[in-house]
Amino acid sequence: MLALLNDDPPRLVRDYPRPQRGAGEARLRMRLAGVCDTDLQLMRGYLGYRGVLGHEVVADVIESDEPGWLGRRVVADINAGCGRCAECERHHGHHCSTRTVLGIVGRDGALAEELVVPERCLVAVPDSVPDERAVFAEPLAAALHVLDAIPAGFAGRAVVLGDGKLGLLIVFALAARGSSVTLVGHHPDKLALGRRFGARCLLESELDRAAEQAPLVVEATGSAGGLALALALTAPRGTVVLKTTVAGRLEVDLAPIVVNELRVVGSRCGDLTSAVNALGAGLDPSPLVVARYPLSRADQALAHASQKGVLKVVVEGAP
Amino acid sequence: MLALLNDDPPRLVRDYPRPQRGAGEARLRMRLAGVCDTDLQLMRGYLGYRGVLGHEVVADVIESDEPGWLGRRVVADINAGCGRCAECERHHGHHCSTRTVLGIVGRDGALAEELVVPERCLVAVPDSVPDERAVFAEPLAAALHVLDAIPAGFAGRAVVLGDGKLGLLIVFALAARGSSVTLVGHHPDKLALGRRFGARCLLESELDRAAEQAPLVVEATGSAGGLALALALTAPRGTVVLKTTVAGRLEVDLAPIVVNELRVVGSRCGDLTSAVNALGAGLDPSPLVVARYPLSRADQALAHASQKGVLKVVVEGAP
Repeated sequence: MLALLNDDPPRLVRDYPRPQRGAGEARLRMRLAGVCDTDLQLMRGYLGYRGVLGHEVVADVIESDEPGWLGRRVVADINAGCGRCAECERHHGHHCSTRTVLGIVGRDGALAEELVVPERCLVAVPDSVPDERAVFAEPLAAALHVLDAIPAGFAGRAVVLGDGKLGLLIVFALAARGSSVTLVGHHPDKLALGRRFGARCLLESELDRAAEQAPLVVEATGSAGGLALALALTAPRGTVVLKTTVAGRLEVDLAPIVVNELRVVGSRCGDLTSAVNALGAGLDPSPLVVARYPLSRADQALAHASQKGVLKVVVEGAP
Repeated sequence: MLALLNDDPPRLVRDYPRPQRGAGEARLRMRLAGVCDTDLQLMRGYLGYRGVLGHEVVADVIESDEPGWLGRRVVADINAGCGRCAECERHHGHHCSTRTVLGIVGRDGALAEELVVPERCLVAVPDSVPDERAVFAEPLAAALHVLDAIPAGFAGRAVVLGDGKLGLLIVFALAARGSSVTLVGHHPDKLALGRRFGARCLLESELDRAAEQAPLVVEATGSAGGLALALALTAPRGTVVLKTTVAGRLEVDLAPIVVNELRVVGSRCGDLTSAVNALGAGLDPSPLVVARYPLSRADQALAHASQKGVLKVVVEGAP
């Protein structure tokens, strides 16, 4: 089958073997898949992953032990835990020590005609949610997960650093929660989108750090320098939610964390069901899509997504 | 009067002017003062402070607008906020943007015959608590403050990194809360004290990182390298309480915070009243004292405290 393999460099393979389904797993035919910055990091060697790329996907179930899933349109939790440990029983296996992660760790991803995921990772997509929204379920879940890191009852000002795809989805999530959000970025066109999503928007070069201090700062710049700015912008006893994973070491002055008694909370993947519910309720991230490619040109989709300042690029499954 | 001035180098001054009391302030005669690692950092230029050192103190009130304080034996919150802002009204002014900090920022400290602090910072010491325990009120408050950073209801395993004065007091605080504590350090004699305080104790060289992962890690090493070890020892979704302030920048890989969704919480000063209550209830940190000096030899006390591996050095007020 067609598949985009994270070789060195990544390349489109025409005769990649179809994935084999194990017990408790479903085989899916990809309908639409998104390209994520993590894919670009994986291309640069992050985590040493060498399989099929892609972890943002909406797909049809074409094979499953559970007849109820057959023919359903689904999204999938990318973390496939062992299903047996305490972590899996309590928390969807997001931190299971033997988990695979779709298109990231030990499991071929979604930039292919077909993929295989455990049935317990599947979430059905309501008919009211079209593919171009459903494909955002995974990054939207990650954005909504920011809310889990915030003290209960928080309703203050929030600053989101980074006007990329994730930053814009986080603006979505916080505005839906009722926060007053300021988005800080580098791209007037993306900031315009942030404004449309309900945020006050500022170029980083226009930022008055003292005036903009807030009790909540979300760091989603995707760059190593974001943390220092986040620490400077967080009011005493405030919270920094850290979304950026940067490979390698970072030089930073962490004294503000102690002196100002900040909480720095790491936040990775979220709950897919919550994201599908939010999409079903009418949340529409599809304005983030800037280009669609057929799977047969997935390599060009990746190259497009690698260009500076490009928002969401999606890839269509084979008809 | 006699005072230990943080000049370059620090020096004992015999004719330092007695401090002038402002409105709402009390004048105190020092009974016993402790030397803290922060004093040693201030000697090296931290915060650029150049006044009288010392912020751990038990003292007698010798002048006050409020007659009730006269003659009382007291300890003092070192953070003296403006007393008027919202921060001061709600939170004891620990983060008041115009605060002074006794012996650290803008207010002469306790390594002198006399000192002046706002009356609202005073906490009376019960007769049952001798000076050599009361002098620990400030660092004990900082240690107990670790508990404020822990999720409510936490009762799991805790690892404390650093077998210095603060690390040992944190062992105290956590053990009193009912946690099962492992103390990791470099000094067999200090670890023996930790064992006496209720902790399981390990030399860092003996540490099996995978086996010792815990949901709570307190970083109190006082060294730049402590954070990386803390991150490695914290179980997914766990909490790192950061107590070390290291001047300057630090090179560290922060990806574990995001990947393992850790909470890193800065923790500085605590509530003096809680500490005095704990001392009144029988908590006895005085085994940490290794040497007593008269104020007339406070410079030697500082030199002694600067030696590697030395625990608490205290300085007695003029008789």
